[in-house]
Amino acid sequence: MFTGLSAFPLTPMNESGIDEKAFIRLLKRLTSARVDSIGVLGSTGSYVYLNREERLRVTQLAIEYAEGIPVMIGISSLRTRDVLQLAEDAQKAGANGVLLAPVSYQQLTEDEVFSLYETVTKSLTVPLCVYDNPSTTHFRFSDELHGKIARLRHVRSIKIPGVPKDLVSAKERVEQLRAHISYDVTIGVSGDAYAAVGLNAGCEAWYSVLGGLYPDICLKITRSALAGRSVEAESQSAHLDPLWKMFQKYGSLRVVAAVAEMQGLTGNPSLPLPLQGLNEIARRELADILTSLELDR
Amino acid sequence: MFTGLSAFPLTPMNESGIDEKAFIRLLKRLTSARVDSIGVLGSTGSYVYLNREERLRVTQLAIEYAEGIPVMIGISSLRTRDVLQLAEDAQKAGANGVLLAPVSYQQLTEDEVFSLYETVTKSLTVPLCVYDNPSTTHFRFSDELHGKIARLRHVRSIKIPGVPKDLVSAKERVEQLRAHISYDVTIGVSGDAYAAVGLNAGCEAWYSVLGGLYPDICLKITRSALAGRSVEAESQSAHLDPLWKMFQKYGSLRVVAAVAEMQGLTGNPSLPLPLQGLNEIARRELADILTSLELDR
Repeated sequence: MFTGLSAFPLTPMNESGIDEKAFIRLLKRLTSARVDSIGVLGSTGSYVYLNREERLRVTQLAIEYAEGIPVMIGISSLRTRDVLQLAEDAQKAGANGVLLAPVSYQQLTEDEVFSLYETVTKSLTVPLCVYDNPSTTHFRFSDELHGKIARLRHVRSIKIPGVPKDLVSAKERVEQLRAHISYDVTIGVSGDAYAAVGLNAGCEAWYSVLGGLYPDICLKITRSALAGRSVEAESQSAHLDPLWKMFQKYGSLRVVAAVAEMQGLTGNPSLPLPLQGLNEIARRELADILTSLELDR
Repeated sequence: MFTGLSAFPLTPMNESGIDEKAFIRLLKRLTSARVDSIGVLGSTGSYVYLNREERLRVTQLAIEYAEGIPVMIGISSLRTRDVLQLAEDAQKAGANGVLLAPVSYQQLTEDEVFSLYETVTKSLTVPLCVYDNPSTTHFRFSDELHGKIARLRHVRSIKIPGVPKDLVSAKERVEQLRAHISYDVTIGVSGDAYAAVGLNAGCEAWYSVLGGLYPDICLKITRSALAGRSVEAESQSAHLDPLWKMFQKYGSLRVVAAVAEMQGLTGNPSLPLPLQGLNEIARRELADILTSLELDR
């Protein structure tokens, strides 16, 4: 399940709770497009702002509406105790896999992060994807630590942050990591702007923010790259450059949330306070981009 | 209540729950020493690893055992909704003040942080201390933002991170911030190694990690500095240099937790996983330091 396009939908919400109808609407776009997997309660799913009961509800809805597509559930939390509870909830609900980031408040050591993965994988019956995202977790994995964790039972994928922009350096980066990771553990790229180059460079999966809202174009890029049509993949991704620039400027979460709001797929606001949506100037800029890109689903 | 020594005790815990007896033991050291205030559920109190019920219980215990010393309760959380609930819990339990940090997962903007403080202070009847700690929250306040927040109703203090090590630069830093902050809002230093120089440079409070465990020496430093005996304060602080170096190396939380464990004040472990206590080598180093310093309470 950790290859191809893994689409990460928003969890639309406001201060009164989760907008379940809007969430189901987003899921239906993904199942209609037949993405390769659905990644629920990742950073784009705002997992960290929800309590255990809310996360269970989102998990249950995703599994209920997945139409046979494998569902990976984010189980990250600051405390190991809570991660174990969330893992149990996800497994009981029927998750096909789980995603775990070493989210931190106090700076974590490599030993602490390894022990976290060791403890959690011991409690699992489903495969786990390691979530490496230093911009939100503030933890930086060494390749050696990735290698050590990848040898733990149930670990089957690593979601890495962006790769270098040029293909040669990106290949070097993926090969450097691969030297520590056996081939039964896939390497998946995130940072949507780097997805085409990452897939062209040898990543087997794309853990995608935009794919959670516009799966069709993201599937095209993924299929092109994984079939070896690297120039085509690059060009399809380059077409989306105006969006990648907005991601860079405002953060991908705020941008996809604004798009979902503007397209009437969710209410407005759709993010949990203190997070605020994009301002009017950014929304106008985004509207122009959407018109010119002619994205449908 | 936001002047002098504010002592931040640990919240001793393990995977089974909070060690209430040990927590009360720590509180008694602070009330016997007559610290100026007690700061519960700060970073040293591991607030971020506890759920709402546990935080309420710690709040109630602190207020029950404070013996008339003002108690400030940490109400920080990633989501505004949760901060509002925690503020209500703290106020209902009888807190004398609250402490709020802009803890973040998605990077927050200045507008978002200002709105957080604006929303929360509207719900308050007790004074608030702004908690500025970029190493854990990953948010950096500008002085302009501090000024804007300090003008909100109920804001009465700012807990700043360490100041520069030399007195001239430290004075410059405090004066620079003070230019944005009216005198009815105190400025308190944290980062224990910088406390003496911070107080000598014009800070009115010390928000102290070590003071949560060894209040006597921290009170001495505070009293010396606030009485204008700056050389004495510096020399009392310099005496603790070996401890400050351990704080620097391992983080103040892990060090004070190890000391509390080694002195039998708490069980071992006393920190929530994934956080691990100091290893044996560090503990031996720490034991030597404690012997040479002859700290009592």
